[in-house]
Amino acid sequence: MKIVRFMAEGKEHYGVMEDKNVVSITEIMHFTQRMFPQTIEELISKKLEALSNIEDALKSLDIKAKEASTYKLNEIELLAPIRNPPKIICLGLNYYDHAAEQDAKIPEEPIIFFKPRTTITDPNKPIIKPKFVKKLDYEAELAIVIGKGGKNIPITQAKHHIFGYTILNDVSARDIQFKDKQWSRGKSFDTFAPIGPCITTADQIKNPNNLKIKTWVNNEPRQNSSTKNMVFNVYEIIYHLSKVMTLEPCDIIATGTPAGVGVFMKPKPKFLQPNDRVIIEIQGIGRLENFVVEASS
Amino acid sequence: MKIVRFMAEGKEHYGVMEDKNVVSITEIMHFTQRMFPQTIEELISKKLEALSNIEDALKSLDIKAKEASTYKLNEIELLAPIRNPPKIICLGLNYYDHAAEQDAKIPEEPIIFFKPRTTITDPNKPIIKPKFVKKLDYEAELAIVIGKGGKNIPITQAKHHIFGYTILNDVSARDIQFKDKQWSRGKSFDTFAPIGPCITTADQIKNPNNLKIKTWVNNEPRQNSSTKNMVFNVYEIIYHLSKVMTLEPCDIIATGTPAGVGVFMKPKPKFLQPNDRVIIEIQGIGRLENFVVEASS
Repeated sequence: MKIVRFMAEGKEHYGVMEDKNVVSITEIMHFTQRMFPQTIEELISKKLEALSNIEDALKSLDIKAKEASTYKLNEIELLAPIRNPPKIICLGLNYYDHAAEQDAKIPEEPIIFFKPRTTITDPNKPIIKPKFVKKLDYEAELAIVIGKGGKNIPITQAKHHIFGYTILNDVSARDIQFKDKQWSRGKSFDTFAPIGPCITTADQIKNPNNLKIKTWVNNEPRQNSSTKNMVFNVYEIIYHLSKVMTLEPCDIIATGTPAGVGVFMKPKPKFLQPNDRVIIEIQGIGRLENFVVEASS
Repeated sequence: MKIVRFMAEGKEHYGVMEDKNVVSITEIMHFTQRMFPQTIEELISKKLEALSNIEDALKSLDIKAKEASTYKLNEIELLAPIRNPPKIICLGLNYYDHAAEQDAKIPEEPIIFFKPRTTITDPNKPIIKPKFVKKLDYEAELAIVIGKGGKNIPITQAKHHIFGYTILNDVSARDIQFKDKQWSRGKSFDTFAPIGPCITTADQIKNPNNLKIKTWVNNEPRQNSSTKNMVFNVYEIIYHLSKVMTLEPCDIIATGTPAGVGVFMKPKPKFLQPNDRVIIEIQGIGRLENFVVEASS
């Protein structure tokens, strides 16, 4: 299933995307005796049982009830599927092609940093460029959504800890990132983590380590790679991170970006400008689109 | 006031430390008609009004009620005052004496990183050293607790956004920190952020930019400085960080460590070993004590 959080008729819902429609689980609760999780976070924490309950309900619902709970995609406003993850853990230098474009050494273990939750923004909403940021850049990333938490998770068990996958744009102010040498500040501005459009549940992604990942700025193709070029694959990442810290339900892990970011373009860098539209597509998940707006100060 | 979170008789409380006693606000609620915040997080969000309500209640409470709500410090178990801060923002290289001991350049703007909430541990509890971490170190830090959130906060307004101050030990695995070059991973292990013993409310700290800060390992003095040696003072930090990200109530900002960390000791480094006791003292706040235990794996 593709799980989404959205606004419709002035109210927040979560639901399931089906073609060009979204069925609101929030609405369905009015038509069935069953109890469902009240929020997407609760759904993620209860994963398996809750997901199969929802699947059953969608099948057994009568046509009138389903109709009354269904919105067309163009009637709703998609929201970042998770607003308050306990952590947003990000990997740097995790694609062979991205390490190559900057002549960087392949790391022996994942290099990480964190983005604060205040970076999260919704699909189709602005990425706000502060006036003093001159080198704004995108980074398309496959993001793991943790279902079951854990510490010291073996590689062979890692898949049981994954609720699903989404897209995260690790927006970066290269001027600040490179000046500081530590990456955190340049990646921590408000709106620097668009997330969405949905969480595709793990059962729908046969192999997360072989997904096409692409970025366009306006109509120009920029990134075009596959998660098979990751240095540490999805399961290895969970193994390595959980040796360091306890993973918690709803944690988001952004798995690094492939080649093609603006700062390393030849013959010269191409940074994001006001009004630019950034579109990221990952196979099995969908498209995450945002546009750039310059702040007044 | 010195606000604490603690366990007593198997139950979690928050309260006010007075000499060798703690008055439980959680208990006082049984004896008065007034409404108090249910948690320390709620207290922080409502700051001024809630604090003066508590002060009034403590004054007007009859002796029996006060007695029934009071615990001796040695009967309780102190907890980290905040368990789920939206962010833990940490500054690096923010003391002139610490930059000098490693011949590092003074930064023009704060260098930051984040610790995840899973690093938080309580006073008097173990710092758990994974077996593969060989270079474990302490860092005594004054930590700001944000009361009122905000973005683009001017220096002159910064003090109105501070609820109070606590101590944070920015425990660091130097081997991993220096191998990665990015600091985050080596500072993100579970238990690598002891916090406490209390939050001293901002009105009790006349000048946060002139407080003695000291560390001992076992009985050996290691750090002995003053917050007047900070490169960016408390108010400047809030100004700089809020240019980047929205500050939220209960955010914790660790303001950097002075000279005297183990890795830069002469003639050779002195890293933390199992059973070592680390004591940090900051004027106006108190003492935060923890001990090192090696994990079985």
